[in-house]
Amino acid sequence: MKVEDIKKILIVGGGTMGQQTALICALHGYDVAMHDISMEILEKGFERLKKNCIRITASGEFTPEEGEAAIKRIILTDKPEIAAQDADLIIESVPEDPALKAKIFASFHELCKPETVFTTNTSTLVPSMFAHAVGRPEKFCAFHFHDIAITKIVDIMPHPGTDPETIALVREFAIKIGQIPIELKTENHGYVFNNMLMAFIGSALTLASRKVASVEDIDRSWMGVLHTPLGPFGMIDSIGIDTVWKVTDFWAQKRQDKHALGNAAFLREYVDKGDLGVKTGRGFYEYPAPAFAKKDFLTSGK
Amino acid sequence: MKVEDIKKILIVGGGTMGQQTALICALHGYDVAMHDISMEILEKGFERLKKNCIRITASGEFTPEEGEAAIKRIILTDKPEIAAQDADLIIESVPEDPALKAKIFASFHELCKPETVFTTNTSTLVPSMFAHAVGRPEKFCAFHFHDIAITKIVDIMPHPGTDPETIALVREFAIKIGQIPIELKTENHGYVFNNMLMAFIGSALTLASRKVASVEDIDRSWMGVLHTPLGPFGMIDSIGIDTVWKVTDFWAQKRQDKHALGNAAFLREYVDKGDLGVKTGRGFYEYPAPAFAKKDFLTSGK
Ligand SMILES: NC(=O)c1ccc[n+]([C@@H]2O[C@H](COP(=O)([O-])OP(=O)(O)OC[C@H]3O[C@@H](n4cnc5c(N)ncnc54)[C@H](O)[C@@H]3O)[C@@H](O)[C@H]2O)c1
Ligand SMILES: NC(=O)c1ccc[n+]([C@@H]2O[C@H](COP(=O)([O-])OP(=O)(O)OC[C@H]3O[C@@H](n4cnc5c(N)ncnc54)[C@H](O)[C@@H]3O)[C@@H](O)[C@H]2O)c1
Repeated sequence: MKVEDIKKILIVGGGTMGQQTALICALHGYDVAMHDISMEILEKGFERLKKNCIRITASGEFTPEEGEAAIKRIILTDKPEIAAQDADLIIESVPEDPALKAKIFASFHELCKPETVFTTNTSTLVPSMFAHAVGRPEKFCAFHFHDIAITKIVDIMPHPGTDPETIALVREFAIKIGQIPIELKTENHGYVFNNMLMAFIGSALTLASRKVASVEDIDRSWMGVLHTPLGPFGMIDSIGIDTVWKVTDFWAQKRQDKHALGNAAFLREYVDKGDLGVKTGRGFYEYPAPAFAKKDFLTSGK
Repeated sequence: MKVEDIKKILIVGGGTMGQQTALICALHGYDVAMHDISMEILEKGFERLKKNCIRITASGEFTPEEGEAAIKRIILTDKPEIAAQDADLIIESVPEDPALKAKIFASFHELCKPETVFTTNTSTLVPSMFAHAVGRPEKFCAFHFHDIAITKIVDIMPHPGTDPETIALVREFAIKIGQIPIELKTENHGYVFNNMLMAFIGSALTLASRKVASVEDIDRSWMGVLHTPLGPFGMIDSIGIDTVWKVTDFWAQKRQDKHALGNAAFLREYVDKGDLGVKTGRGFYEYPAPAFAKKDFLTSGK
């Protein structure tokens, strides 16, 4: 298959990432089928997708007419057989469960034509965890988006059995939908940005959990040297303390790393209190007006 | 001693950091003695200090008159006895060698009055490595500056024998000279910012040295998600590949960490070629017009 042959995209999972990837494909002229387990979920998601579309056209990147045309290119279906029809590329964004992802790819392998390329948007798993179940492992890789409101960076990552032509094709497709592909040459936990982010966040967490410095001083030093609007704890609040806890705890358990276990326990206290960050209004800071966003934050340490 | 009692600062070592700390103290009204091993070194350094002063007054932070007055507050001397006279606070910035630092503090302990507070600007050592030789360990801590042209963030760090009053005093002094103190509650290798920076850089180096992704793609993903002007390899070029190699290699050897040893070997190839980054015109990028500074860098991956 050539990139010009890609016409119809199947989005599996109509949640946060499904909505974002569906919209970006449709805005770039692709027909999109969004599939989820119920029409109710799909319709709710579609409302959010339309709001997202208005935000994007308001930013001037696309005209309102292009936005309306994009919305019309998207169909919703809870029936896998209908979703699979004529699909050239699957972008899977169902919950982060390798068994669930394996089951879904196995069933779409039966339903899709042999050429269809399968991709997973998984954040913390790697494709080889379920490549065996995909049926067409050579046509399968990770195609990982970040928040499209923040960045156009996308990661493309093979598992050991991926055909290099699949990577080349997904890369060309990423460019067609206006994204900036980052190509991983080998399978690696955490892609490129997430790897650096977790290393950096892990070091900040170790400083705080071992009480070397305060959360505010740690953020202050990062923001003050690099002149960025957020420090590590501001970032954790924005990602969600529960999400960072899950990833930290998973690797800490797996590696039995003393510092990482301490970091997970430190995060866990916030999770147990229900203080998950921006989304709950409270995490390391209080929202909507966190201390670090105040003009005098850098100099306000007493 | 109270912060108001601090009148005269002794800067030991008139190199890059000695010049910067001398200037910042003098600009804030303190009398400064700069001490180094020869008058020739001191006079060369003083020329650079004066240029730095002009740059700072040009930025508008201080008036040209304040700059001139500051310069007049600085005396140069290669005689330890003269340097030590009436000194209330020492900021030591001699080369990164624990034996040398120990020797210098021991000799100033004999020359200074009992109240004088001793601080070290060491980047990669910790004060307990030479606190035993200081003679007044309770009046000794780390007082670590970054490049004053970039940031006002300074780290203040005790060793286990530092009197908390010493920390409180140095903290108040940091504020008097217009800096933003970051207080470490316990001794810790790498302070706060440097710790996070090295974790983040280490992860970027591991991705590159294991050939998971290209140097450019790694920078692109950091810059593209966080919208920063530099990625990790741009930063390494600016710090100096030799400096990052030294720290990476030291810890890699000490911990016998496989990834870190690989990272050190990866950096070593550049050091051996003499490609040290911005200062030699070539490192991961070519200067003065590195690829990452071009407008289309993010989208220029082929
Ligand atoms: N949220 C993010 O910021 C983000 C970023 C990058 C990647 N990801 C990855 O994307 C994936 C989805 O994350 P999300 O945040 O969109 O989750 P989400 O919970 O918002 O959405 C998941 C959707 O999948 C649906 N689903 C569950 N079982 C299904 C099935 N059998 N068939 C079809 N649909 C099914 C759910 O009903 C839900 O609508 C995860 O693998 C995650 O790691 C998330
Ligand atoms: N350069 C930086 O960016 C930076 C930043 C923060 C901290 N530091 C730390 O500051 C210290 C100095 O670094 P630098 O970059 O200024 O080094 P430098 O080489 O520029 O200056 C060191 C100076 O110390 C002098 N010196 C050597 N022996 C001496 C002695 N016995 N008595 C008095 N002076 C002596 C040298 O002649 C030289 O002028 C190191 O501990 C370093 O880790 C450096």
